[in-house]
Amino acid sequence: MATTSREIRLKSRPTGMPEASNFELASVELMDPAPGEVLVRNSWMSVDPYMRGRMYDRPSYVPPFELGKALQGGAVGRVVKSNDPKFQPGDLVESMFGWREAFVAPGGALNKLPTTEVPPQAYLGVLGMPGMTAYSSFHRIGEPKAGETVFVSGAAGAVGSVVCQNAKIRGCTVVASAGTDEKLEWLKSVGVDHVINYKTTESLVKALQAAAPKGIDIYFDNVGGEHLEAALEAARPFARFIECGMISMYNDTGISPGPRNMVYIVGKRIKMQGFIVSDFADMRGEFYREMSEWVRQGRVKWQETVENGIDRAPQAFLNLFTGANTGKMLVKLD
Amino acid sequence: MATTSREIRLKSRPTGMPEASNFELASVELMDPAPGEVLVRNSWMSVDPYMRGRMYDRPSYVPPFELGKALQGGAVGRVVKSNDPKFQPGDLVESMFGWREAFVAPGGALNKLPTTEVPPQAYLGVLGMPGMTAYSSFHRIGEPKAGETVFVSGAAGAVGSVVCQNAKIRGCTVVASAGTDEKLEWLKSVGVDHVINYKTTESLVKALQAAAPKGIDIYFDNVGGEHLEAALEAARPFARFIECGMISMYNDTGISPGPRNMVYIVGKRIKMQGFIVSDFADMRGEFYREMSEWVRQGRVKWQETVENGIDRAPQAFLNLFTGANTGKMLVKLD
Repeated sequence: MATTSREIRLKSRPTGMPEASNFELASVELMDPAPGEVLVRNSWMSVDPYMRGRMYDRPSYVPPFELGKALQGGAVGRVVKSNDPKFQPGDLVESMFGWREAFVAPGGALNKLPTTEVPPQAYLGVLGMPGMTAYSSFHRIGEPKAGETVFVSGAAGAVGSVVCQNAKIRGCTVVASAGTDEKLEWLKSVGVDHVINYKTTESLVKALQAAAPKGIDIYFDNVGGEHLEAALEAARPFARFIECGMISMYNDTGISPGPRNMVYIVGKRIKMQGFIVSDFADMRGEFYREMSEWVRQGRVKWQETVENGIDRAPQAFLNLFTGANTGKMLVKLD
Repeated sequence: MATTSREIRLKSRPTGMPEASNFELASVELMDPAPGEVLVRNSWMSVDPYMRGRMYDRPSYVPPFELGKALQGGAVGRVVKSNDPKFQPGDLVESMFGWREAFVAPGGALNKLPTTEVPPQAYLGVLGMPGMTAYSSFHRIGEPKAGETVFVSGAAGAVGSVVCQNAKIRGCTVVASAGTDEKLEWLKSVGVDHVINYKTTESLVKALQAAAPKGIDIYFDNVGGEHLEAALEAARPFARFIECGMISMYNDTGISPGPRNMVYIVGKRIKMQGFIVSDFADMRGEFYREMSEWVRQGRVKWQETVENGIDRAPQAFLNLFTGANTGKMLVKLD
């Protein structure tokens, strides 16, 4: 008996800012699971800024998305039918099969999630890839020490907001930048010490100097561009720059000049390091243990911005680049 | 009985490229050494690119040079008179009292050099600060592995040429850039695999791609600017960028745009780290042991560019920025 599933495919590769016309909705018939396979109906899908990189046709750490195929990305759902003895109907599973309402896959490609008080979509956010991205790099590259000052750009996003709260738990002073006063209010409500609205401030450099007059020890970069330049200006000796992303550059078509003060790297002995979450896979156990506890204790909070229905997935993705999301951007499917 | 010494003082702070008029020659009378003090006559003085930074009046890792005072920098000389029992007339000593023919200082501020077959000025180059700069950062930040590809900019200088030869000893393939064919010929003669004349090449990016078609694992940066941009382009995943200096930027007065491809730091997981030689002081013993042995075996060679007489020190310094030196730039005083 076939199951119908709708999916979002990449229709054309965006030039500059992606548009709705780069995506298309399609309907497919799924076959019953063969031996060892499982039929899953997704409940929540993740849209993430890093997916923009996979829309370019160029060599990178993961292959580009294929035209005419469903976009890949994280999702959580429930098992509907199982031909793999390790899964039962009703099991909650996480997968990377992306923007589909339902799919059939080998059981080995699914990650069974624990039954806890935590809502399932948290496994796409604070307890999922964005949370692990924040936790692993903040500790491994940032090497935070109590009393240090941490600057986080794109601080209201799924990754940035976890970094801010992890930094507070580690005894740091936190300066956060975001693009709306609502986001900044929420960041203050979870303990951030100083906030900067980068869209309304006259000078990011001056705002950062005012917020952190003695300079910054750690910069968590989600944005690149002017934010990176301001962070170089404010960096204290031996500052660590965690290069998680540069969303301000992802849709550039022309030449985007780099920071004009790179020379500070030498004299201030800055360490600037890029990473991909999978580089720190060895920290997964530690991450689950600590972060689950912090979530349970209410020491790490999160916000969600939710679009409803698979047909809204492209718009949810586009909204990431205009800053329309506070916290984790999600698509709810059932 | 007084001793006359001539010295070079900073007369005014340069704007952009320094000029001869920023310096002045003065003559001073030295008193006999008091108890615990030593009178030293310098034989060789060092001029180094990093000194440009100290001519700015701004906070940095060392205080700025003072106007009207002799410039500080490395020198080697012989003890003339000693009132410190640890020093005898004729002892070879290294000091940081700079651009002076002779000086009186407490014995504790002098570093007695061993009597070896190595000429004394080597303690200002391959066995001195530039050699230690190269050796310590190449090993500590670069973490070289046999079979890796290393790109060195400003490769014919005192630091760069040691990096090239250390990299060959560690089993790496070396690509070196310099500004004259004579420098490049010398680099090939000491084992460098591929050379790039950055002044005559049409595209640094293409030249680097041709020399290292599979990309580079380590970039040793003495230059910044376009070299850094080309290195980002050519970097392989997990490349290490050793940020030793950015001589192309030291005399900039306007805005120098940074590398336009900084975003590669994220996806390629590049580690970019600045340093000052004193950060790796713990490696001094290892440095002397290994480098002395390599020099003795002829596995590390060097070149010198020598100006004669204290009055030539400013010109020797200015020549650093036009690339007039091959290897270590020195001023000979006796």
